[in-house]
Amino acid sequence: MHKCDLERMSEKIRTFSKFGDAGHGGVTRYSLSPEALQARDYFAERMKAIGATIETDDVANMYATIPGSDPAAKRIVMGSHCDSVKNGGNYDGILGVIGAMEVLETVVEEGIPHKHPLTAMIWTNEEGSLYPPAMMCSGIVCHDFLPEDIAKNFKYEEKMQSTSVLDKQTTFGEMLENFKYKGDRKNRLNPDGYKCMFEMHIEQGPILEDAGNEIGVVDCVLGMFNYRVSFAGQSAHAGTFPMQKRKDALFAAAQALCHLHEEIDKLGYPELVYTTGELLIHPCVHTVIPDFVEFSLDVRHEKPEVRGQVLEIVQSLPQKEWAGCKCEIKEAWKRDTVYWDKKLVGYVEEAAKEMGVKHQYIHSGAGHDAQFAAYMMPTTMIFVVSKDGLSHCEPEYTSDEQCTTAATVLLNAVLRADAE
Amino acid sequence: MHKCDLERMSEKIRTFSKFGDAGHGGVTRYSLSPEALQARDYFAERMKAIGATIETDDVANMYATIPGSDPAAKRIVMGSHCDSVKNGGNYDGILGVIGAMEVLETVVEEGIPHKHPLTAMIWTNEEGSLYPPAMMCSGIVCHDFLPEDIAKNFKYEEKMQSTSVLDKQTTFGEMLENFKYKGDRKNRLNPDGYKCMFEMHIEQGPILEDAGNEIGVVDCVLGMFNYRVSFAGQSAHAGTFPMQKRKDALFAAAQALCHLHEEIDKLGYPELVYTTGELLIHPCVHTVIPDFVEFSLDVRHEKPEVRGQVLEIVQSLPQKEWAGCKCEIKEAWKRDTVYWDKKLVGYVEEAAKEMGVKHQYIHSGAGHDAQFAAYMMPTTMIFVVSKDGLSHCEPEYTSDEQCTTAATVLLNAVLRADAE
Repeated sequence: MHKCDLERMSEKIRTFSKFGDAGHGGVTRYSLSPEALQARDYFAERMKAIGATIETDDVANMYATIPGSDPAAKRIVMGSHCDSVKNGGNYDGILGVIGAMEVLETVVEEGIPHKHPLTAMIWTNEEGSLYPPAMMCSGIVCHDFLPEDIAKNFKYEEKMQSTSVLDKQTTFGEMLENFKYKGDRKNRLNPDGYKCMFEMHIEQGPILEDAGNEIGVVDCVLGMFNYRVSFAGQSAHAGTFPMQKRKDALFAAAQALCHLHEEIDKLGYPELVYTTGELLIHPCVHTVIPDFVEFSLDVRHEKPEVRGQVLEIVQSLPQKEWAGCKCEIKEAWKRDTVYWDKKLVGYVEEAAKEMGVKHQYIHSGAGHDAQFAAYMMPTTMIFVVSKDGLSHCEPEYTSDEQCTTAATVLLNAVLRADAE
Repeated sequence: MHKCDLERMSEKIRTFSKFGDAGHGGVTRYSLSPEALQARDYFAERMKAIGATIETDDVANMYATIPGSDPAAKRIVMGSHCDSVKNGGNYDGILGVIGAMEVLETVVEEGIPHKHPLTAMIWTNEEGSLYPPAMMCSGIVCHDFLPEDIAKNFKYEEKMQSTSVLDKQTTFGEMLENFKYKGDRKNRLNPDGYKCMFEMHIEQGPILEDAGNEIGVVDCVLGMFNYRVSFAGQSAHAGTFPMQKRKDALFAAAQALCHLHEEIDKLGYPELVYTTGELLIHPCVHTVIPDFVEFSLDVRHEKPEVRGQVLEIVQSLPQKEWAGCKCEIKEAWKRDTVYWDKKLVGYVEEAAKEMGVKHQYIHSGAGHDAQFAAYMMPTTMIFVVSKDGLSHCEPEYTSDEQCTTAATVLLNAVLRADAE
């Protein structure tokens, strides 16, 4: 069994953590920013140093490839993203890039024989922090392969017009135009040139840690739907309007939230997660009865029949009585569960077993670029434990040893795919 | 019985509606604005035309006075405010000024004998729309007479530093410095120079209309308290964090709102009003579990023992379980019920009876300048019906006939006070 190198991993983790260092343990490294450019330069420099060829496509996705023994063989690609959220951590995304680099470096340093070319990859703008949406460039690249209802959200031309949330003027397309790593459309990831894809990532949740495991053998990305639920009532003065005549949109929304929790919990699915993270209220003045409240509802579960049961509860809301307010619901977004390729999942499990590292099967609750790639070619993911389940924040942490373990699992899973 | 004049009332209502006309039925007339200046110029011009003397105090409150037959008698003052909220209506505040002007005009035109000097008054910055807080200048003028817990919120110097909500630079004090009607502190309303005060106002609620009455004989301004209730939980990813481990601050707040409604309604006081108008949520992202939510709670009832029962419910919140979140409560503001002078209230009732106009006793749920004046001298209010109970909005409406009826009630109540 081949092993990745702790010291080399540590060096990469420390170095990438400098690019966008926010000064208190984490990074802010927006896509296409000077900090993201530093990270990409370092990626290119290290990959060239082991003889890899660097290619970039028209949305600046980067590909570093070392040849295999069979010139006709398709590439095996590993990768993730190097952009972060505002005040994010040192692991989300970038660890998958570091793991891919480490696999290539280990293969070259140790002269590990392999048939297929091996590619380490950086996806552009996974977080969508500055230019929404998230997973923009995997969506664009995989567009023709996506199911129709998802593909409609990934029109190439429209995404190029996504406006910066900071200056509200510059578009993603304009920034991309002058970006050093904008390349050629012909270099895009594609199923003719690539055999399969692996993405290694921190778990971003507490399941592995709570179970005492280090590695998650990911079998799918959970299907989900996102709804907007709104209540329209009547504004009036808090002091002069009798309770009996009120149409209080906030009270309606509070009752609906409690009702949703009660009804969804009754279904009794322990793996079901649902979240109201956003709530808008108008006019939001302490002496005025609110006349409009809207909230989001994000629901995730592997099984469509479970999501369907929750959807029925959501769809029944407008027929109920909510403090005299009019309730409307609107679908904002949905996706089916994306299952990873069974053979690749098996390779990851075998690699973890062979190493004797504590592991378990796990679903991904979060979205990742790999889920779009999965419509194009066999794909899978490897999770590594996240301390306290924290992510998208500066305290995000996975030890260098755990990161190296995950890279070793990646390496040996890739070598199994190579040996097919 | 003396009567006010419909045509003269209509002329004033139409003319004041031009000052700050927002183009769709209402006005935006901030305190100390050019539009407020137009209104004050018109007030001064009409009052001078009937021989009134104009005085202004150091916060630009305006007083127009006609002499009575007894040179030693104290003045009887009537008034309200001429500033509005953004896109407010043509009646809130200004109708009380128009009514006071109409009383003086009727007395002069008809040569109605009276012993006391009669004063029509404009209070500066009642709404506090541009420079918070509301009722700023009655608070300043009545400061020495206010109960200690209210007076502490009305430090003269601090209020002068209140910053414009529009340009965030100019202070109320700076604007006042160059305002045409800034006058002398010695002209302030005071109990040595003034015998009593009347404020006529639209109801701003639906109670009179629902009961088929035109005039409200106001007996008090409701006591109230305002609390901030907050919940602190833990942010985490909506897709990766199991329900069992969550500390969802929004779910906590929704449960607390439903609990408050349930418990307060159980008390069974039909005249009790309570409102959550403001709610803050962090970080307010649809894929993130909220870690902090704070809401306001405004509670109003005449009786302190009723407010006390509600307060007990609020104070018990932190001891309860709220989705694993920490609950904190904080008093933001409170006032006791302010009862109007019984003799003056009787004069209003007698005047309404004598006219044969449909009337009833009513509490004021909203705050008014008169409530601060009441700590200084005998004070009362007269309400006139508001169409659909709407106020602080452009559709605010009371017919010219109803406004004239209210002015006539004011005139005859004032003449009763004069004849004491």
